[in-house]
Amino acid sequence: MPQGATAEPAEAPDPAGADRPGRLMRAEIHEQPAVWTRLQDEGRDAVVRAAATFRAAEPTQVVLLARGSSDNAAIYAQYLMQIGLHLPAALATPSVHTLYGTPVFPPGACVLAVSQSGASADLVQTLAAARQAGCLTLSITNDPASPLAAGADAHIPLLAGPERSVAATKTYTSELLALWMFTRAVGGRQPDAPELAAFGEQVLESADSACRRLAERLTGVRRLLAVGRGYGFASAREAALKLMETSYVMTQGLSAADAEHGPVAVLDPQTPLLAFASQGPGTPSMASVVAAARAAGAPVEVIGDGTLAGDSLPALLPADVPPDLAPLLEILPAQLLALELAVLGGNDPDRPRGLSKVTSTV
Amino acid sequence: MPQGATAEPAEAPDPAGADRPGRLMRAEIHEQPAVWTRLQDEGRDAVVRAAATFRAAEPTQVVLLARGSSDNAAIYAQYLMQIGLHLPAALATPSVHTLYGTPVFPPGACVLAVSQSGASADLVQTLAAARQAGCLTLSITNDPASPLAAGADAHIPLLAGPERSVAATKTYTSELLALWMFTRAVGGRQPDAPELAAFGEQVLESADSACRRLAERLTGVRRLLAVGRGYGFASAREAALKLMETSYVMTQGLSAADAEHGPVAVLDPQTPLLAFASQGPGTPSMASVVAAARAAGAPVEVIGDGTLAGDSLPALLPADVPPDLAPLLEILPAQLLALELAVLGGNDPDRPRGLSKVTSTV
Repeated sequence: MPQGATAEPAEAPDPAGADRPGRLMRAEIHEQPAVWTRLQDEGRDAVVRAAATFRAAEPTQVVLLARGSSDNAAIYAQYLMQIGLHLPAALATPSVHTLYGTPVFPPGACVLAVSQSGASADLVQTLAAARQAGCLTLSITNDPASPLAAGADAHIPLLAGPERSVAATKTYTSELLALWMFTRAVGGRQPDAPELAAFGEQVLESADSACRRLAERLTGVRRLLAVGRGYGFASAREAALKLMETSYVMTQGLSAADAEHGPVAVLDPQTPLLAFASQGPGTPSMASVVAAARAAGAPVEVIGDGTLAGDSLPALLPADVPPDLAPLLEILPAQLLALELAVLGGNDPDRPRGLSKVTSTV
Repeated sequence: MPQGATAEPAEAPDPAGADRPGRLMRAEIHEQPAVWTRLQDEGRDAVVRAAATFRAAEPTQVVLLARGSSDNAAIYAQYLMQIGLHLPAALATPSVHTLYGTPVFPPGACVLAVSQSGASADLVQTLAAARQAGCLTLSITNDPASPLAAGADAHIPLLAGPERSVAATKTYTSELLALWMFTRAVGGRQPDAPELAAFGEQVLESADSACRRLAERLTGVRRLLAVGRGYGFASAREAALKLMETSYVMTQGLSAADAEHGPVAVLDPQTPLLAFASQGPGTPSMASVVAAARAAGAPVEVIGDGTLAGDSLPALLPADVPPDLAPLLEILPAQLLALELAVLGGNDPDRPRGLSKVTSTV
């Protein structure tokens, strides 16, 4: 994403509803299937090259470096790489490096930075330290001219186009897809998901009006608990972040394993549960959280494949979505819900308070 | 903690206020300085032995295995070990092992399980897998007879005595202290903090009535944002967990680095900021979050050494507390605040809804 992009929206000429709140965010949410197709077509070579570099270096493990939405993409990658490649993958703590000046990387690690802007100062500094320490460095960003792109041994571009909405939507899912493609290629498999874009269109079509109705029903809600398990944990966290940033609903995003032993106590008739639940090994603990919500009289909204039922259906995922691709689809209704709740609350998610595009943390 | 302890409270004879809500939690909060003294006196040998085992094995890194409050202790350990020992330390994702059957551990890693009960099924299973994979395994628990104690190459007992309150308080800070002592011993330093217990008494004495007054002022508050940076990140997360579990206030615990780029938007006059801020390299980003809270008209409550000022003073930490020991002290007023808010809200934090003592996650 070009650095100055966020300054543009107000000036951009758009006769049809230029001032409609959330116009940019809505457009970019709906742009996602096309972005996924482009990344698979035009980004494939970069993915294959990065995977070859990775395989040649034979790293013992992956350290993921990210902030904000990209941190949630990194959590997804943690599951992908450990389950799909049997390769240890953990999240870095950038402040250990930037605040306390202690660059510590495991021997033989590959350090992979994930960042829309590619410009966050703490990530740039930490990736440089990793390179100096002899680690293989990779980066995934939306700006090939960014410091993180230039500072890595290999770079995968997101090709998501300028992100004019301040809240990351299309760059989040393109990060997920780039990580999925990269993991597939490292594992010696074709990095193609030919049905993904059609699945995305299908989910968006059904979710668009369903999320508006859900937002109407949830108008006035000030607290939400978002819960997932396994691959769905990243979705719960990203949904929470999006809801906090754009609609100012205080939302915790938790793993079902952590939620069910304490935090479910926050659920009550004014505090709905947003559950990411598709069929899989996480179903029993998700069912347990849903049961706790029911017992507390909390509204239960389920995004999934119908394995667990909620009060409404923000979106039904197609039945044949592979579990490791579900996070790209299940976040779509959560993005729409954040958008609609913001607009109904009289806020403009394209101009959220408190959000800047490039994190300037040092 | 003996497995059956949580069944006892209601029966325990206590003529003086046996039914006073939060009686057990309050007693255990105040017990903490004595527990810290006992751990330093009677636990020292076990710490020194575990550290010797660790040094002999020369692990390349540490993988921390925990859930709930202990997960927050593990985050503290991540900072301690990386900053103090220059040793990479990361959190495990137990569900990768238990749900997806993929035991992946970095070569040469020490896997350290932290758990009050020592009995959580997913941790027991993952630690066993780590041992089978050839990793050095350590555990820190409050029950020397627990599976995690028996299943590790070395064990450090918390010696916190039976924890009869359902919300973990004294076992959380004794986990922090055990991790601090262990890290010191591994680094070849004396694992003693002779002034710690006195500091604890001092903080509790000033915080006791201050937190009651603060809770009175915050009565009716349904949302809070807890923020810290560096060592204070663990405190923000643990404060959030305690507030959710016992007083049902929806609280997010975030790093200042993540909070200031988006989530601060949830702050408003009904949504206070709870800031963990002591002097140190994290001060600028904490100051930035405090400024955002002020701009939003949100009440600002600061727990720290006076570097940053808040609307009230839940507790002032003594000026000469080393930054790596501050988390033991700064969580005390947060525990008291959770207790007082629960009691004022008509709830009994000794019988919180939604909380069970041994996490049974599989």
